[in-house]
Amino acid sequence: MTINIMEVIKAIELVGSSPQGFDAAVRHAIEEAKRTLRNIRRVEVLDFEVLMENDEIKMYQARVKLYFMVERG
Amino acid sequence: MTINIMEVIKAIELVGSSPQGFDAAVRHAIEEAKRTLRNIRRVEVLDFEVLMENDEIKMYQARVKLYFMVERG
Amino acid sequence: MTINIMEVIKAIELVGSSPQGFDAAVRHAIEEAKRTLRNIRRVEVLDFEVLMENDEIKMYQARVKLYFMVERG
Amino acid sequence: MTINIMEVIKAIELVGSSPQGFDAAVRHAIEEAKRTLRNIRRVEVLDFEVLMENDEIKMYQARVKLYFMVERG
Amino acid sequence: MTINIMEVIKAIELVGSSPQGFDAAVRHAIEEAKRTLRNIRRVEVLDFEVLMENDEIKMYQARVKLYFMVERG
Amino acid sequence: MTINIMEVIKAIELVGSSPQGFDAAVRHAIEEAKRTLRNIRRVEVLDFEVLMENDEIKMYQARVKLYFMVERG
Amino acid sequence: MTINIMEVIKAIELVGSSPQGFDAAVRHAIEEAKRTLRNIRRVEVLDFEVLMENDEIKMYQARVKLYFMVERG
Amino acid sequence: MTINIMEVIKAIELVGSSPQGFDAAVRHAIEEAKRTLRNIRRVEVLDFEVLMENDEIKMYQARVKLYFMVERG
Amino acid sequence: MTINIMEVIKAIELVGSSPQGFDAAVRHAIEEAKRTLRNIRRVEVLDFEVLMENDEIKMYQARVKLYFMVERG
Amino acid sequence: MTINIMEVIKAIELVGSSPQGFDAAVRHAIEEAKRTLRNIRRVEVLDFEVLMENDEIKMYQARVKLYFMVERG
Amino acid sequence: MTINIMEVIKAIELVGSSPQGFDAAVRHAIEEAKRTLRNIRRVEVLDFEVLMENDEIKMYQARVKLYFMVERG
Amino acid sequence: MTINIMEVIKAIELVGSSPQGFDAAVRHAIEEAKRTLRNIRRVEVLDFEVLMENDEIKMYQARVKLYFMVERG
Repeated sequence: MTINIMEVIKAIELVGSSPQGFDAAVRHAIEEAKRTLRNIRRVEVLDFEVLMENDEIKMYQARVKLYFMVERG
Repeated sequence: MTINIMEVIKAIELVGSSPQGFDAAVRHAIEEAKRTLRNIRRVEVLDFEVLMENDEIKMYQARVKLYFMVERG
Repeated sequence: MTINIMEVIKAIELVGSSPQGFDAAVRHAIEEAKRTLRNIRRVEVLDFEVLMENDEIKMYQARVKLYFMVERG
Repeated sequence: MTINIMEVIKAIELVGSSPQGFDAAVRHAIEEAKRTLRNIRRVEVLDFEVLMENDEIKMYQARVKLYFMVERG
Repeated sequence: MTINIMEVIKAIELVGSSPQGFDAAVRHAIEEAKRTLRNIRRVEVLDFEVLMENDEIKMYQARVKLYFMVERG
Repeated sequence: MTINIMEVIKAIELVGSSPQGFDAAVRHAIEEAKRTLRNIRRVEVLDFEVLMENDEIKMYQARVKLYFMVERG
Repeated sequence: MTINIMEVIKAIELVGSSPQGFDAAVRHAIEEAKRTLRNIRRVEVLDFEVLMENDEIKMYQARVKLYFMVERG
Repeated sequence: MTINIMEVIKAIELVGSSPQGFDAAVRHAIEEAKRTLRNIRRVEVLDFEVLMENDEIKMYQARVKLYFMVERG
Repeated sequence: MTINIMEVIKAIELVGSSPQGFDAAVRHAIEEAKRTLRNIRRVEVLDFEVLMENDEIKMYQARVKLYFMVERG
Repeated sequence: MTINIMEVIKAIELVGSSPQGFDAAVRHAIEEAKRTLRNIRRVEVLDFEVLMENDEIKMYQARVKLYFMVERG
Repeated sequence: MTINIMEVIKAIELVGSSPQGFDAAVRHAIEEAKRTLRNIRRVEVLDFEVLMENDEIKMYQARVKLYFMVERG
Repeated sequence: MTINIMEVIKAIELVGSSPQGFDAAVRHAIEEAKRTLRNIRRVEVLDFEVLMENDEIKMYQARVKLYFMVERG
């Protein structure tokens, strides 16, 4: 990882969901973020949750913070 | 609440103000957010503050985190 | 408040809701708890949330911890 | 999710275990809770642990908080 | 707000009470502080509590931190 | 400690009191819990407090979380 | 405990020391506070430390927060 | 500081870097933010880090939260 | 688990990595620790991260705290 | 540092400011405290902030906790 | 306490146990640490636990962080 | 930064001191760590303190966590 002196990193918070499990929920948040962001460096997991519906597991959720490099025009 | 598998939720942090009280400060942050965002699901109160001016209460403030669904074009 | 040496206090966590505001959400949790518990001493507010529906405020929520005296048979 | 004004939600804390992994440990806690509770809405993961025995992984553990609707008789 | 270079701000912690609600409990702490302090700038709410007596709400309490300018003689 | 795969552990929070000191306050909470619970595994101390009356120490208090095995009928 | 509507409680933080143990360190902080304060209601233990000298235990320390009623002249 | 009733403040999180030290890392994050934002009011330092390369200090980093006024068109 | 009165437990913090997922990252940290430590009792997960490279997931990381019995010579 | 058995330490919280940087803001809080206090032992930095005015850095601020020995008359 | 400019302090985390109480559990962790370390300066208590066996108190445990001076060869 | 699949990172906690300021205190902890460790990757600042002597600043202190790659023999 080359560190550019003028680089600034921004952090955003997303919640990803998956019916398959927590790892997949994190991956889903990253996949969605990549639709609009480039240069994601690091993704912190803030917490995990399970959503229930009719007393069955409906969705695994991961709240994550993504750090990405701010690009200049 | 129907949970779409492909749904990703984003969180942003705002500070709302009102001279009337804490509930109104939260509502004001939500009102302002609705000017540019749709599909707000949940609003967490992070903390409350009172701003003083000449030793009188000037404004009640609420720092909130809003969770809203990211829409696809 | 007379403190009985043999007294033990138990804490439980509830989430109260109200369309009117945060104070009412706390009161609602207490009202509900009183249906099954006696001797509630103290109620801590853990956090506040607002639930949205169709981008309108649907409900104010308060997560609270209630401390009540455990009674002996 | 229809929010009933009179609804109160209760939270309890469980530790689920599984020799298979963290997701399974969370599912096990939910399965056990469903033996006595209905209307579980949301399950927060508080933390994960691994128990060792003779320096081998014996069990994955998940400490979770379950939120369920309190029913009236 | 003009910021004086030599200004130092001090913080103190109070608990205000009111039978009316949380906003009033915060206001009461500020009113009391103003009896002996000048130049209060900001009041952070640390947490809210409800005190019960005979299973009725007796008092709303707010634990607050007040920041005020230290004056020189 | 034999770990049963199907075992689920539940946590509850109590406040124990004693005029003698903090260790005794923890022991009192455990003694009281044993009147209704079996298979307590571990007791975490969450915090300690002293209650005063007429400016004398009235009671040492310990807020604890008890983890016990959920039994099946 | 009679709760006076106009009552405001103030909190201060002290560190008490004792060569005998943690309970004594808390008591020492309370004894010292009583030299200048009246109407202490509650004392929270924030944390405990041991100070060493020449690799021997020199002193047990308790950092405490004392809540006392503010009196009016 | 004149507080406009209708004002809403937004918070974003950035990581600034500098080979010179922590103060410069904070200043760098602010400089970068000013390229796209106006009306920054307050910048909280969340934490500091040092990045190493070949066991030499490569960069001082500051994770900051910037609060700025949301403007209306 | 037989608890020896003279037993002292030490805790160390490691970061394990795996391209496969979070469970594997935890297992990898444990495997590495077992190369030099015996009698590991418990492993707490402190947090999870994902490292990205060229906007692809490069590695799942788990920061863990391992508790192991200190042996005497 | 000689530890007197009867010594009690008090903690107060100040916010120091400086246009020069964070170290100077801490020093300024200490200088101000020394105008009225003796026997300051230790100063913890609680957090750092930057105040902006017209989008320029106006002041570096440090919130600190000072521990000082309580003297007897 | 003479502070040597070149001094660096290291922190380690231990869990001490005793059947007698929390103070003794802390002392036990210190005694064990002294078998291999010199120049321990300060010991922070991180938390206390009680281990149960057959629903009886088996052991008081204290998780502590020890700070000691790193010596040079 | 090439990430080796088999790499495990260890974290240790040090307190560095300097009479010059907080940045220098962090650098001093790193310099000391480099006497015995290689492959330090990242250094987190946990907190800053100032030690006083005769009411003068004696030393700036930084408590840091160093992350370094564990090497295999």
